[in-house]
Amino acid sequence: MSVPVTIRDIRPADHAAWLTLWQGYLTFYKVSLPDSVTAMTWARIIDPVCPVFTRVATIDDAVIGFSTCIIHPRTWAVEPACYLEDLYVDETRRGIGAGRALIDDLLAMGRRDRWTCLYWHTNADNATARRLYDHFAPADGFVRYRLAITAPQ
Amino acid sequence: MSVPVTIRDIRPADHAAWLTLWQGYLTFYKVSLPDSVTAMTWARIIDPVCPVFTRVATIDDAVIGFSTCIIHPRTWAVEPACYLEDLYVDETRRGIGAGRALIDDLLAMGRRDRWTCLYWHTNADNATARRLYDHFAPADGFVRYRLAITAPQ
Amino acid sequence: MSVPVTIRDIRPADHAAWLTLWQGYLTFYKVSLPDSVTAMTWARIIDPVCPVFTRVATIDDAVIGFSTCIIHPRTWAVEPACYLEDLYVDETRRGIGAGRALIDDLLAMGRRDRWTCLYWHTNADNATARRLYDHFAPADGFVRYRLAITAPQ
Amino acid sequence: MSVPVTIRDIRPADHAAWLTLWQGYLTFYKVSLPDSVTAMTWARIIDPVCPVFTRVATIDDAVIGFSTCIIHPRTWAVEPACYLEDLYVDETRRGIGAGRALIDDLLAMGRRDRWTCLYWHTNADNATARRLYDHFAPADGFVRYRLAITAPQ
Repeated sequence: MSVPVTIRDIRPADHAAWLTLWQGYLTFYKVSLPDSVTAMTWARIIDPVCPVFTRVATIDDAVIGFSTCIIHPRTWAVEPACYLEDLYVDETRRGIGAGRALIDDLLAMGRRDRWTCLYWHTNADNATARRLYDHFAPADGFVRYRLAITAPQ
Repeated sequence: MSVPVTIRDIRPADHAAWLTLWQGYLTFYKVSLPDSVTAMTWARIIDPVCPVFTRVATIDDAVIGFSTCIIHPRTWAVEPACYLEDLYVDETRRGIGAGRALIDDLLAMGRRDRWTCLYWHTNADNATARRLYDHFAPADGFVRYRLAITAPQ
Repeated sequence: MSVPVTIRDIRPADHAAWLTLWQGYLTFYKVSLPDSVTAMTWARIIDPVCPVFTRVATIDDAVIGFSTCIIHPRTWAVEPACYLEDLYVDETRRGIGAGRALIDDLLAMGRRDRWTCLYWHTNADNATARRLYDHFAPADGFVRYRLAITAPQ
Repeated sequence: MSVPVTIRDIRPADHAAWLTLWQGYLTFYKVSLPDSVTAMTWARIIDPVCPVFTRVATIDDAVIGFSTCIIHPRTWAVEPACYLEDLYVDETRRGIGAGRALIDDLLAMGRRDRWTCLYWHTNADNATARRLYDHFAPADGFVRYRLAITAPQ
């Protein structure tokens, strides 16, 4: 039996539901962030002028997952790129297509709003996530270099 | 004998020198872009309000390489990330430290302007580039998924 | 007899028509701008990532006027403001409602995209323009202070 | 005797002091804003990626006033404009030069960061404010039209 998953824009009233999912997401990645970062991320998500946005997956009006993206200009195209930074589905709601529906939704937005591409990163050994991602296309052969920057004290 | 490489902001008067390097860079990647894209990229580079910026490497006042980056907000930090999209040094000027100086320069900017990180991608089998990058840190174990988006006609 | 004026987004192919109108607009204001400024303004207008945008008024597919706006965040509302910086109609096409149609179009965009307000400035003694503007609402009683800034040499 | 007023960037630790001044400022203008707007404005102010920024005036480390501005691109210059949306000094600290110091500070920032202009609006009959502003330059002869936009329900 198929469960109907609906994707929509996040709304200010989703704050509590988002916070629970966000903490689940950070726990999955074994990351702990200061409350000031979570507060800023929420503000960016609901700020209609900021290029960060979030779409949520719902079942029976309950928010069970989200995608958070950043639209940015690039140098190889006139149209912007969309960087999918965060994708998460409640662990108790896996396997019913919510992750796939969230990515399909972004591709539909991208066609409508004329992005040049949608991209994201994942750990090479995250087999579960890659099983989902490989439905869309294989990883593109690029690796990431990432240098943390520590401001002078 | 060490050759002094200087890094500075690009200026409108660098247009011709940039164009030659940009074409060399695209040729290296076997990419051909419409002139309208190159014109837009140049406009973004010299627009002081756009989050795309370019630094150039010079020897004796000749521009021999460049880095082009995009500053964007993210969700795991208050401070922005810097995405290094393009890095190139004239093929006849390799091996004198210009590539390394361009990355060092970005790290210094990041400390001054409080970015959270500097990141870039490279093809897993681009051994030449990775020899340079590995001086800074090894690739971080993440792979990239990237879906081209084709707008409806 | 009413002449049908159509309002639409500007397109790259409108460059020549826009340039003629832009020069007419600057001539009206007795302003001369360097070509580098006009080139940057055009690039901002057609850059889909830049918050500057232009709508054009057309009659029988000929571009006869334009509005250029900047979307920006503000402090008294969550939703952005839209600043109408430039509004112009070809002097030979006045009196057929193109100016009014361009402002009506912006108001419709604002309702759809949820801007908090649309605002613009005009010289207190520009009676012709104010006759048009007063159809929408009287000036709001605010005056403008504007200090030119000269960068150190 | 002159009282030393110092101007600096606002910091997250200034939240409580800012909130008191912000409420005083809104009370002065007889405006009441939802808490969600004040929360968003604070987030924009302390977000280093957002083009909204705040400078504060301090005396003996106490925050006694602020300026809040938005940097935006424009069409008549390559360099951005700076719109001073809010300027306020605690009513018990008037007359010691804090307002003037806040504007002088912005002019110095503008010369350093190469803005094309600094502008703001004030009610034509706000004689107290205009006495301060007229030290810099007279109002420039432009009036403002401003249409509130009400989104469809």
